[in-house]
Amino acid sequence: MGGYVPGEQPQEPGYIKLNTNENPYPPSPKVLAAIAKALNEDLRKYPDPMATAARRKAAEVYGMKPERVLGGNGSDELLTIITRCFAGEGDKIVFPYPSYSLYHTLAEIQGAKPMAVEFPDDYSLPKEIVQPDAKLTFIPNPNSPSGTFIPKAELRRLAKKTSGVLVIDEAYVDFADENCLDLVDEFPNVIVLRTFSKSFSLAGMRIGFAFAQEPLIEGLVKAKDSYNVNRLWIAAAVASLDDLDYVRKNVQTIKKDREYLVKELRRMGLFVYPSQANFVMARLDSEEQAKGVYERLKAQKILIRYWSKPRIDDCVRITVGTREEIDALLRALAALLENLKKGKKVSVR
Amino acid sequence: MGGYVPGEQPQEPGYIKLNTNENPYPPSPKVLAAIAKALNEDLRKYPDPMATAARRKAAEVYGMKPERVLGGNGSDELLTIITRCFAGEGDKIVFPYPSYSLYHTLAEIQGAKPMAVEFPDDYSLPKEIVQPDAKLTFIPNPNSPSGTFIPKAELRRLAKKTSGVLVIDEAYVDFADENCLDLVDEFPNVIVLRTFSKSFSLAGMRIGFAFAQEPLIEGLVKAKDSYNVNRLWIAAAVASLDDLDYVRKNVQTIKKDREYLVKELRRMGLFVYPSQANFVMARLDSEEQAKGVYERLKAQKILIRYWSKPRIDDCVRITVGTREEIDALLRALAALLENLKKGKKVSVR
Repeated sequence: MGGYVPGEQPQEPGYIKLNTNENPYPPSPKVLAAIAKALNEDLRKYPDPMATAARRKAAEVYGMKPERVLGGNGSDELLTIITRCFAGEGDKIVFPYPSYSLYHTLAEIQGAKPMAVEFPDDYSLPKEIVQPDAKLTFIPNPNSPSGTFIPKAELRRLAKKTSGVLVIDEAYVDFADENCLDLVDEFPNVIVLRTFSKSFSLAGMRIGFAFAQEPLIEGLVKAKDSYNVNRLWIAAAVASLDDLDYVRKNVQTIKKDREYLVKELRRMGLFVYPSQANFVMARLDSEEQAKGVYERLKAQKILIRYWSKPRIDDCVRITVGTREEIDALLRALAALLENLKKGKKVSVR
Repeated sequence: MGGYVPGEQPQEPGYIKLNTNENPYPPSPKVLAAIAKALNEDLRKYPDPMATAARRKAAEVYGMKPERVLGGNGSDELLTIITRCFAGEGDKIVFPYPSYSLYHTLAEIQGAKPMAVEFPDDYSLPKEIVQPDAKLTFIPNPNSPSGTFIPKAELRRLAKKTSGVLVIDEAYVDFADENCLDLVDEFPNVIVLRTFSKSFSLAGMRIGFAFAQEPLIEGLVKAKDSYNVNRLWIAAAVASLDDLDYVRKNVQTIKKDREYLVKELRRMGLFVYPSQANFVMARLDSEEQAKGVYERLKAQKILIRYWSKPRIDDCVRITVGTREEIDALLRALAALLENLKKGKKVSVR
């Protein structure tokens, strides 16, 4: 088994990091201040096992009962707990492809039967995603790496047709036009996941939330580590939810810059998928070209994401950074594509 | 399935908390300062997936290669990863009883076959703990709730006889006379776990480490969440390992106060198990009496631990607090036992 391979996280400074969809703006100063306040001798004591303060605050902000909320170390931990909780050995776990490859890894670790259903070329919801015997169905929305979005009406239809648990992974939804949080009220089998790693600028704190009706949340609570999140996590989560204006402002900027990035990439002649996330996927002419562009940019200390995988091996995924980072990327990319036109090889190999 | 039930964590102040084996002394000021330094805009970025700085520092301090070290959110997360990694459905997982009940819970969640082997009355290693077909054997050393210790020579013999993975859970070992870390060099099937929740006064940060030879660690890395520990965790772990003198000083105080607590409890006529941990287990005359003492003390805002479980339902577990906390506990307990002698009921029910 291979295990999930995360994007590069260089520990040296000097990189323009457009490869793992971090927010280019710092976390809210109020969040840093709240963590600083929690940085005291109480750290000798265990945290509240249910992170009640954060649970209540999330419930208040998202218009939900606290009993329908559970915090975790990023949505990754929640995905792990969900898989352990709802799928046994040999059980079918369904998810679309190309998508977040962790779903496949988690199914394998669990000894479950992963079933990847191919997206059509337009990344709309594939019909075969409805599997009557699936214990778990994962739908990331917006999807990564495509950035595409499936309308709520379609996911509502899917929830109706699915007898197992439907997990809507909304890691990027704050950059989209709508979200599926209210499907939690409608369906006893829907779990919606959120993360503070993107819109909240807190990837380094590992904050995620699951929203679902009580029986599902109670199941997850039994399977989670007793003290899964630490005291500073709780302080950071509460303060973040208390300062949503800060998040909204950054989200607006990123959405505006996303449109700029898309427009400029298209002007260069690239095909760019319509994105509702804080990244865009652009298609080049070939696998060799996409890989070459990724490697050349990396040599110039600009990191974007490339996968040598079916359907996306001629694509690159680019995080929406600051306007300056986007311009640096666009300049470097334009020069590479110009060289290509002149018949030069892009690959550094 | 019931799930593991942690000790009470009252969120209101005013309790003397001797129930979950926290350190009564605050974390090192140097650790708090190091976290404060990491509290900056870099929190927008993902942490280093392997927590390399902490891994290297732990390797240096414990005389081990970094490739033999893995960090997690407390030893609990590492126990979870180990179970997911090395036991499938129906596989046998062995552990002693009475002991840390999480082992049983983890086996159940995994769909594995938990096998609890009863400790003899003296809490020495039970012969039946050697199970040739066990995929996993958990040995907490010192054991909780008894506080008793199994000499390294015996665990070395066990490691030789065990073909599956032997996990030595050394959560409390800094309070003991010896430890088993060097068995990692001797045996390819041994994992040693440590936590910073007790001796390091950092229960609120959820810091744990696993030590094992490379193939085992590589397996755990594949099963762990990519970014399992957060940026502040890494800063706290490195700084803690840089300030071991602070830990040693507190450990010395706690060991001295443990002897005082044991002596005083014995002077009251209670049987106290020999402890090498930061808590002691004392036996009362009956289940009713033990439960009554627990409840009466709780009514006085002194929390100790009681389990209504076979073999230990006439016992209570008391964390070694500060000298003042110990004296408050002793005074309250002496009064309760005095009333008992006079024939009064202890139970509040």
